[in-house]
Amino acid sequence: MPRLVMKFGGTSVADMERIRAVAQKVKREVDNGYDVAVVVSAMAGETNKLVGFVRDAAQPPGCDHMGLYDAREYDAIVASGEQVTSGLLALALQEMGVPARSWQGWQIPIRTTSAHGAARIEKIETANLEAKFAEGLHAVVAGFQGLAEDNRIATLGRGGSDTSAVALAAALGAERCDIYTDVDGVYTTDPRIERRAAKLHRISYEEMLELASMGAKVLQTRSVELAMRYKVRLQVLSSFVDAPGTLVCDEEEILEQNVVSGVAYSRDEAKVTLLSVADRPGVAAAIFGPLADAGVNVDMIVQNISEDGRTDMTFSCSMDDLPRARHALEKAAESISYRELVVDDAVAKVSVVGIGMRSHTGVAQKAFQVLANEGVNIKVINTSEIKVSVLIDRKYLELAVQALHAAFDLDKAA
Amino acid sequence: MPRLVMKFGGTSVADMERIRAVAQKVKREVDNGYDVAVVVSAMAGETNKLVGFVRDAAQPPGCDHMGLYDAREYDAIVASGEQVTSGLLALALQEMGVPARSWQGWQIPIRTTSAHGAARIEKIETANLEAKFAEGLHAVVAGFQGLAEDNRIATLGRGGSDTSAVALAAALGAERCDIYTDVDGVYTTDPRIERRAAKLHRISYEEMLELASMGAKVLQTRSVELAMRYKVRLQVLSSFVDAPGTLVCDEEEILEQNVVSGVAYSRDEAKVTLLSVADRPGVAAAIFGPLADAGVNVDMIVQNISEDGRTDMTFSCSMDDLPRARHALEKAAESISYRELVVDDAVAKVSVVGIGMRSHTGVAQKAFQVLANEGVNIKVINTSEIKVSVLIDRKYLELAVQALHAAFDLDKAA
Repeated sequence: MPRLVMKFGGTSVADMERIRAVAQKVKREVDNGYDVAVVVSAMAGETNKLVGFVRDAAQPPGCDHMGLYDAREYDAIVASGEQVTSGLLALALQEMGVPARSWQGWQIPIRTTSAHGAARIEKIETANLEAKFAEGLHAVVAGFQGLAEDNRIATLGRGGSDTSAVALAAALGAERCDIYTDVDGVYTTDPRIERRAAKLHRISYEEMLELASMGAKVLQTRSVELAMRYKVRLQVLSSFVDAPGTLVCDEEEILEQNVVSGVAYSRDEAKVTLLSVADRPGVAAAIFGPLADAGVNVDMIVQNISEDGRTDMTFSCSMDDLPRARHALEKAAESISYRELVVDDAVAKVSVVGIGMRSHTGVAQKAFQVLANEGVNIKVINTSEIKVSVLIDRKYLELAVQALHAAFDLDKAA
Repeated sequence: MPRLVMKFGGTSVADMERIRAVAQKVKREVDNGYDVAVVVSAMAGETNKLVGFVRDAAQPPGCDHMGLYDAREYDAIVASGEQVTSGLLALALQEMGVPARSWQGWQIPIRTTSAHGAARIEKIETANLEAKFAEGLHAVVAGFQGLAEDNRIATLGRGGSDTSAVALAAALGAERCDIYTDVDGVYTTDPRIERRAAKLHRISYEEMLELASMGAKVLQTRSVELAMRYKVRLQVLSSFVDAPGTLVCDEEEILEQNVVSGVAYSRDEAKVTLLSVADRPGVAAAIFGPLADAGVNVDMIVQNISEDGRTDMTFSCSMDDLPRARHALEKAAESISYRELVVDDAVAKVSVVGIGMRSHTGVAQKAFQVLANEGVNIKVINTSEIKVSVLIDRKYLELAVQALHAAFDLDKAA
């Protein structure tokens, strides 16, 4: 029988009533003739509660530093949330006459690396699951977790249930992996900023990756990478509205491709400039080495034209990373040798994304013109094969998104 | 190094503050030179919450019957409570500088029967634990659970963490198994009924078993049986008061043995009499067979002297079992053939317990005399080698307990 993986996030399984609604959706696919594996997150709020316990255990009252805690214990504690939901959904399915059982990561097993708290799936052994499919028993799988080499539970990091679902779909050769969430699909842009934003029927993996890494929080980046690599057809759809969602798939499956698929943005950006850096071989390494060591995720990088053997170096990073970036650069001031460190913490990034750009020229030029017409100054530009990103003053964010959305006819998209 | 098993119940680990207090107690024993294995229950209230989820899943709103639910899913759901506590205590110990790690039942593994929801421990494989002891790593073990043959989590039934602790102490050859609870030991009787009740320093397994099965809810009966069988020295002591508790041990360890150790009672008893039953071979089987099939736990049984080939048969059971007992006997009325079924649902059982009775005669006689002096009528008598039990009107319960406690000098016991 064809196989289907369905994944439900925390808000979709927040209480028994919702778990029963999930069971109904699963039953419908079972009735459609699928062998179904459902991947579930913990009930909404549960993971945060458990993480709070861990913090409390690692940082006793009166202690002002956060102790380093054992990620293996964190994993054992936090993974219990999905364990509960998987059992409850199995019971709800049985109650509706659908034969089903729960599977913990260690039972399947889903083998992961030993990087507790942020493990990666290495292999899913599907023989046990498949034997039960053959007996007509559908699977409810605890998401977000697996079994590390040390025979202990490992979690995949926040949002890891999406990754569990895609990996399982790949391992089982599922026809599709349906990710049920609290939005009903992928939109041409954030509907809170542009009310004419349209739901996309289909989008390519590459575009989804750009959108996901740009702050469109529909899917975890890692899960899209995995889907692309194993060609897993991913559908994003709503747990609460009964309508088709957006299919994330290979571009060959997308017949009528718009040049631009969407406008993404990221509000919490910072721009850092090092003025008058010696323009010598190895200076980039001297700057970005310490930043990488400090765990700063550097995004756009621009180097000015050199004058008198000195240049300016600009990069962007998230506001969260800014304090660490500043600290790392001040510590490395001597080895880098710069005159001044200038921070602009009121910028935002806007990106125009579309695989059509590969075959259509002029998209970047058109985007720059649209922004110029609106009087928006561009501070940094970054392009890839399928996207154009610009850093602008944060106060122009809404204006820029709306203008670009209209200019590329996205309110007519679908 | 000598080994010690410590067990903490739900109220002892109800929040992080208490978990830290538990960690302090464990640290003290580690500092005393023990390799420690701590067995923990779920945080108080957590198991009830999880059981409530299971009920809700198995009995949807509007459905007036409780669905039969899959005990394997119940186990996966409910066992998560101990998983959380074990991780938290391990973290709290690490924070205090005590090297420790959590162990789930399936990791050790603690192998159980496949009777999900009420499994029995079959074997504890201690090699993994012992290898970690050798590395200086103390163990925090999730109580109440193990791994069944089907590679799924099995729980031992409510209160099963006591059993986990005793079984672990036996398997590890521990010097002692300390059961920390919300009472500070075993008393000569319930202090709520007799304020002169005294804490016993030591009590034998056999006496503890009689007291436990009689409603003294300090220890789960099964755990005392197991301790007796494997000669595990059990100490019952308080999580909240820093004082020695009561040692439950082999009678050879008890030097100054009182004839009577305690007075136990059970308030919720019912007396059932079948009047004018044919006194023929097989009639007892005809009566108690259907009761056993209905899951009725029959306690005391008395058969009257036969007259004209007919007799009266009386037995006691708990009030909880009474409706099922009545139903079973009415259904079997024809095959048993009795004139009338008479129920007295206002009785209580009082027992005098002591291994000294084996070598001292006259205890039963003295107990009967004490009750007679107080005007308490005895309805049924039952004796064993180390106890005398009587069924009396419930309204005389306090009076009987106090009179017996005084008559056997128990307020001077210890």
